[in-house]
Amino acid sequence: MIQIESILTGDRLALSRLLTQVENDVPEGHAVLNELFLRGGKAHLIGVTGAPGTGKSSLVNQLALHYRKQTGKRVAIIAVDPTSPFTGGALLGDRVRMRDLSCDTGVFIRSMATRGSLGGLAHTTAAAAQVLDSAGYEIVIIETVGAGQSEVDIARLAHTTLVVESPGLGDDIQAIKAGILEIADILVINKSVLPGVDNSERALHGMLDLAHPSRRVYQHHGRSETVDASGWNKEPVWIPPIVRTMAVEGKGTPELVDAIARHADHLRQSGEWTSREHARLRSEVEALIQESLARQFRLSVPEDCYQSVLSEVFNHRLSPWSAVQSLLDGRCK
Amino acid sequence: MIQIESILTGDRLALSRLLTQVENDVPEGHAVLNELFLRGGKAHLIGVTGAPGTGKSSLVNQLALHYRKQTGKRVAIIAVDPTSPFTGGALLGDRVRMRDLSCDTGVFIRSMATRGSLGGLAHTTAAAAQVLDSAGYEIVIIETVGAGQSEVDIARLAHTTLVVESPGLGDDIQAIKAGILEIADILVINKSVLPGVDNSERALHGMLDLAHPSRRVYQHHGRSETVDASGWNKEPVWIPPIVRTMAVEGKGTPELVDAIARHADHLRQSGEWTSREHARLRSEVEALIQESLARQFRLSVPEDCYQSVLSEVFNHRLSPWSAVQSLLDGRCK
Repeated sequence: MIQIESILTGDRLALSRLLTQVENDVPEGHAVLNELFLRGGKAHLIGVTGAPGTGKSSLVNQLALHYRKQTGKRVAIIAVDPTSPFTGGALLGDRVRMRDLSCDTGVFIRSMATRGSLGGLAHTTAAAAQVLDSAGYEIVIIETVGAGQSEVDIARLAHTTLVVESPGLGDDIQAIKAGILEIADILVINKSVLPGVDNSERALHGMLDLAHPSRRVYQHHGRSETVDASGWNKEPVWIPPIVRTMAVEGKGTPELVDAIARHADHLRQSGEWTSREHARLRSEVEALIQESLARQFRLSVPEDCYQSVLSEVFNHRLSPWSAVQSLLDGRCK
Repeated sequence: MIQIESILTGDRLALSRLLTQVENDVPEGHAVLNELFLRGGKAHLIGVTGAPGTGKSSLVNQLALHYRKQTGKRVAIIAVDPTSPFTGGALLGDRVRMRDLSCDTGVFIRSMATRGSLGGLAHTTAAAAQVLDSAGYEIVIIETVGAGQSEVDIARLAHTTLVVESPGLGDDIQAIKAGILEIADILVINKSVLPGVDNSERALHGMLDLAHPSRRVYQHHGRSETVDASGWNKEPVWIPPIVRTMAVEGKGTPELVDAIARHADHLRQSGEWTSREHARLRSEVEALIQESLARQFRLSVPEDCYQSVLSEVFNHRLSPWSAVQSLLDGRCK
């Protein structure tokens, strides 16, 4: 039994064990989670996503180091690797990071790989972020690999989402990126000493212009704008800034941290901080309802009857929709 | 009201309308879907995935052209673009393809972008594949962009999954690919005239050796092996072959089609064809149960009571788990 006091007093082993319970969705963890949740809601959740090879992990390490040195805030990193669904991988990242950060008790690093069913990862990551928030980590960085739907879902958890690019990853990728760009609060061009950095930045500017018609002058990005192209919109609008970094050398990190802070200010001023939190909690409640109902239902249906319905579906004598309808209508009761 | 006869006699407009109903999850489509499902289960579903920039779309076009010319089979292509969740994009691909394939009534192309909630895309794609199967398309190619969880989920729909690589996309990507490799039935190195193709092939061989300890000699890949490294395993084992292609010129397409046919033979001989179908249908039934139960439940709970529970969660006075428990215990009844 994990004691809530252990978590709150910074017992890292207890925290690790609780996160493992969260990952495995063990019911015995729920009492502590319920209690912890009441203390949460203070952390700034920062999502970091982008294509493989852009140097996200180095960037996240630099961010963590900077927050530690400059602000003394406690930092947690959740490294999510949805591309290893079969091996349960995501260990390498941990090892590499240990060297820089693991001696600092103000930093907590956790890797998570895909488990369970559809949507399971986003759900588990949300729960882990809540635990770390309640445990007193003021900055929780959620790093995801790739640019698929699951990354977008995970990005939605965050208050501030960084999309990381790097020069020369191929121009045919640009069209693809349009989708992921829409979730970016801050665009980072990492590895900015590589050739092609100006092209990359130009391409991003072009896409931002399409996505944000109010972005008339580049200098204004990264601030709360109160005028849109029509001149009428008085709501504060966030125009994603483009920040160049060179994470392995720590260059650009202060500027990036500054942009993140400005975004947090914008969220609080505009009320979006609250609305993002609410959206996240609402979808968490909905997911839990779905899961619980499905679990209850399966327990109420005798296994042999369920299997016989399934085999009619397997033999194409009954469609999945009809099968579910007849199950819900009590065919197996 | 869409008539099932229209679908079965090849009315493309009716088919398009039905797929739109599937995408939007319109209940009125269900009667036709139920009926169509009883005629399905014949198509070979081929998944094609891989990083952006590998030339997947050209490859899919070449495959479709080859099947049309050499076998006369009817071919459907579902192009899934999960990276454009907000714009509902995925139109460009259609346009580009039109030129090569659209005059052929034996080819049907459909783009799908992300809609709705978690897992929604895999679910919708599965339903669309079933419709196309039932409508008489013998080859259904499901193409996905990226390498995240959603692509893996979509790949699981297919009987045969192609993972497309291309030379020189960066060696730091290799480690990432290990996960996606595990879903590959056939590895394709496209753009095989580019420099670095030998390195790419060597790297893939290395990863295959790790993933398939029974793969002692490269020459054997792409056939049903009946002996593993221990010499004892008499079950047929599929060793993923590596096929080089140059899709824009059509090079390697016959070899790829041949490998796909051998894989289908392997699946049928080993019984895996059936087990993959069953797994897919089982998870479809489970997803539908979850959705239906959640919908019923929400209808049974008065909105104002539900909202008041949510606001306790928003204010961190009640955890999501406790909230769901109290809702299920009838707090709002």
